[in-house]
Amino acid sequence: MNNFVYDIPVKVYFGENQLSHLGEELNKFGTRVLMTYGGGSIKKIGLYDKVMDEMKKHGLEVFELSGIEPNPRIDSVRKGAQMCKDNNIDVLLAVGGGSTIDATKFMAAGACVDHDPWDFFNEKRAKIDKALPIVSILTLSATGSEMDAGGVVSNPETNDKIGRVDPHVLPKVSFLDPTLTYSVNQYQTACGSVDIMSHIIEVYFNMEPDLFMLDCFMEGMLKTVVKYAPIAMKEPDNYEARANLMWTSSWAINGFINGGRAKAWSCHPMEHQLSAVYDITHGLGLAILTPRWMEYCLDETNVSKYVQFAVNVFGVDANQEPMTIAKEGIKRLYDFFFKTLGLKSTLTELGIGKEHFADMAFKACGGKILKGFKNLTQEDVIKIYEMCL
Amino acid sequence: MNNFVYDIPVKVYFGENQLSHLGEELNKFGTRVLMTYGGGSIKKIGLYDKVMDEMKKHGLEVFELSGIEPNPRIDSVRKGAQMCKDNNIDVLLAVGGGSTIDATKFMAAGACVDHDPWDFFNEKRAKIDKALPIVSILTLSATGSEMDAGGVVSNPETNDKIGRVDPHVLPKVSFLDPTLTYSVNQYQTACGSVDIMSHIIEVYFNMEPDLFMLDCFMEGMLKTVVKYAPIAMKEPDNYEARANLMWTSSWAINGFINGGRAKAWSCHPMEHQLSAVYDITHGLGLAILTPRWMEYCLDETNVSKYVQFAVNVFGVDANQEPMTIAKEGIKRLYDFFFKTLGLKSTLTELGIGKEHFADMAFKACGGKILKGFKNLTQEDVIKIYEMCL
Repeated sequence: MNNFVYDIPVKVYFGENQLSHLGEELNKFGTRVLMTYGGGSIKKIGLYDKVMDEMKKHGLEVFELSGIEPNPRIDSVRKGAQMCKDNNIDVLLAVGGGSTIDATKFMAAGACVDHDPWDFFNEKRAKIDKALPIVSILTLSATGSEMDAGGVVSNPETNDKIGRVDPHVLPKVSFLDPTLTYSVNQYQTACGSVDIMSHIIEVYFNMEPDLFMLDCFMEGMLKTVVKYAPIAMKEPDNYEARANLMWTSSWAINGFINGGRAKAWSCHPMEHQLSAVYDITHGLGLAILTPRWMEYCLDETNVSKYVQFAVNVFGVDANQEPMTIAKEGIKRLYDFFFKTLGLKSTLTELGIGKEHFADMAFKACGGKILKGFKNLTQEDVIKIYEMCL
Repeated sequence: MNNFVYDIPVKVYFGENQLSHLGEELNKFGTRVLMTYGGGSIKKIGLYDKVMDEMKKHGLEVFELSGIEPNPRIDSVRKGAQMCKDNNIDVLLAVGGGSTIDATKFMAAGACVDHDPWDFFNEKRAKIDKALPIVSILTLSATGSEMDAGGVVSNPETNDKIGRVDPHVLPKVSFLDPTLTYSVNQYQTACGSVDIMSHIIEVYFNMEPDLFMLDCFMEGMLKTVVKYAPIAMKEPDNYEARANLMWTSSWAINGFINGGRAKAWSCHPMEHQLSAVYDITHGLGLAILTPRWMEYCLDETNVSKYVQFAVNVFGVDANQEPMTIAKEGIKRLYDFFFKTLGLKSTLTELGIGKEHFADMAFKACGGKILKGFKNLTQEDVIKIYEMCL
């Protein structure tokens, strides 16, 4: 069991109508706000007006950057960082899902440096010494960006999609109002739920001994998604379902469940290549990859972890051979993604063939190997991609 | 489901040898430290010397207040607050279990006011506007004071034992080193484990609908204590057992599991009267009270919560009548406290009779009724005390 440092000083307002605290929280950081958001959905649901009213009431001067893309682009980050510099911004307000919040994090860091923000992501891995404060209003339960210190940004020129984690970009305050996710459609609800589960699975499947208590938490969160994702899809305005998914999305990836475990992930690096090249929804890519990756990695040395997963998350009968239980667990997850949530189950259905698999595997492995639950060579990764066809 | 604000900005260094970060953390707050501790146990285990060395290395000037009692007294708080004023203290370092940390919290608040610190607890409930920063080094897994904003202080002159919660007294940094609990004896390990479980049970037994995810977390924590408390008693230097108990103690009461639930507790107020009058170990009082309280409150309207507890924590067979399952759950908890952990099961065994029950019930009810999972009149509380004889 390794040592760790726990340090997650994000203040969260959870529940309906908590936006009445938005003005007072922004005011703590200054008066000039850069508000970032994606397409027009926040206007459709009336959130834009509510946020603007609240900010005006508190005498805040608001600048706007809209059009942040799903799989957000480095150009948006560059634009935002420049706007912060040009307008002497005090605090950034990200209103949206993980893409908007992720991009905003690196605008906040980019505002404090003279170099291109892409240097945070490319081989330079430029140091982040500070960032402007960030406040977020979440509208999609998925990435957990509202309570974590990381983000993923795409560069279409180089076909790169790269993540970066730094404590300076942790949001200071996040507003989590489950009713703001009522308008998330079935498909996005399903993909967000897969993303949440994947964040947990990436940590849970690990043979390093760590805290049993954290394994219990992870199983609880997986059970929560299995229980509530289908309800949220059928009844989009079911508060209980949306609330459980929302709070789980934050705790799946804020670092708490890691404990002292090494944090090397497997499915996310493989998926980032998929969505970098094909711009597919991140959660859909994860759904297709995860059960294949689990199947590919299963062996006698790690079967116990699969058994724990199958029994404690899906209630598979424990009185069977370990391998049987393990495979049943994978099947239950597969059925959950593709039957219960109704997602497409193969890359072929998405029109994706094997043309780029070698390149993608190269990048997923950082040119070497992909360390994780089981270390994967580029050939291993290609085989897993092929299992998804 | 009610709204809530999540805000727990405590930084935790978890694991062995993390004290190498103590000096740098204290230095962030200044150079003049008041170090508080209880009896000589921190000297016996070599912790005193280690802490002193680390502080000297960082040029800190250290003042000491030792002798903080279990069930800490208001006189210790008064003394500490005065020492802070007299010596222009910048930061308090509490080294010990919950009693030392609890008392230190109100020294830190008391240092910032002119009135008697007991005014924080008595009917005046004096406002806390600020407190000196607090750093803690935990040596006993039980109260969770290392990561929460509350504390309980006794006043032997008035036979009062009163709790107070205020965000200003939340520790800034806490050091959780499981090896520092290796020397905790079997009895204290058992009592600490009961305290942890009680903090969870006080929240878990609640008929307000809240987040399912948090119920899963609570069940996971209860299972963790059930699994590791007996191991820690048999093998006092089992790192895994001590680590799981330690991190669970913090999360049982830092506020996370509350979600939006009303926070009225039942067994703690009843126990505080017991230990105020008889100075018994808090965890032992809780062990004796909790199963009786559960039995007393059980009825057709709340049986579902007991069933959930019995099945998910103790694995009781779910294919039985709800009342049968519920009673089996209570029995399992009773057996865990008094057989597995080997604690005394009645007040009679502690030499406690019914003389003060009426007074204690009056105080536990704040002169009126004790609100909680089931609202209890003073007569109800007396009956529960009598069930413990």
